[in-house]
Amino acid sequence: MSTHRFAVNVAPKPGILDPQGRAVEGSLGHLGIGGVSAVRVGRRVELTVDASDEGAARTVVERLAAELLSNPLIEAYAIESIAGASSTTGVSSTTGVSSVGAGEG
Amino acid sequence: MSTHRFAVNVAPKPGILDPQGRAVEGSLGHLGIGGVSAVRVGRRVELTVDASDEGAARTVVERLAAELLSNPLIEAYAIESIAGASSTTGVSSTTGVSSVGAGEG
Repeated sequence: MSTHRFAVNVAPKPGILDPQGRAVEGSLGHLGIGGVSAVRVGRRVELTVDASDEGAARTVVERLAAELLSNPLIEAYAIESIAGASSTTGVSSTTGVSSVGAGEG
Repeated sequence: MSTHRFAVNVAPKPGILDPQGRAVEGSLGHLGIGGVSAVRVGRRVELTVDASDEGAARTVVERLAAELLSNPLIEAYAIESIAGASSTTGVSSTTGVSSVGAGEG
């Protein structure tokens, strides 16, 4: 058994409305910030998986991402392997996006 | 002027309650999935910045992340440079987490 930490990045598919992204863009003027465009707001789920090897762990994460963490009609996901215990709350030097879920939407 | 694409990953700080993470963990049993723990649910914001160089673009993203995209009392953020137009909706082979915001919480 080994322990693996992953992140699942979920974002609205191209062409799908993203009201949160529009809200961020609308706030930029109040902050006096220019030059920012194409804002997309999604979710990032980090989790730890105990499995026999990394392949088995990734299979679990793939299933979770497709069945629980994303809505395949309107969202795409990407699975990322995180070296440390947590990428956002600690410095992680190597990450790799290795899987992208397109859904059938 | 050059164009740069970034992602800002925002996650609840260690020790801060994460009800969405608990909800995901609670759903694992219904899916018959075991071995998953330490689920943390955060946001991921992808955006494009036009600036004179990458340093200037990163300065803009740092300010956005600290002032608009995260709540420094309860959330930490990490800024990631994305090679392609979008990491979640296209395959991106190189990402690097280079900045972690700890806040003063």
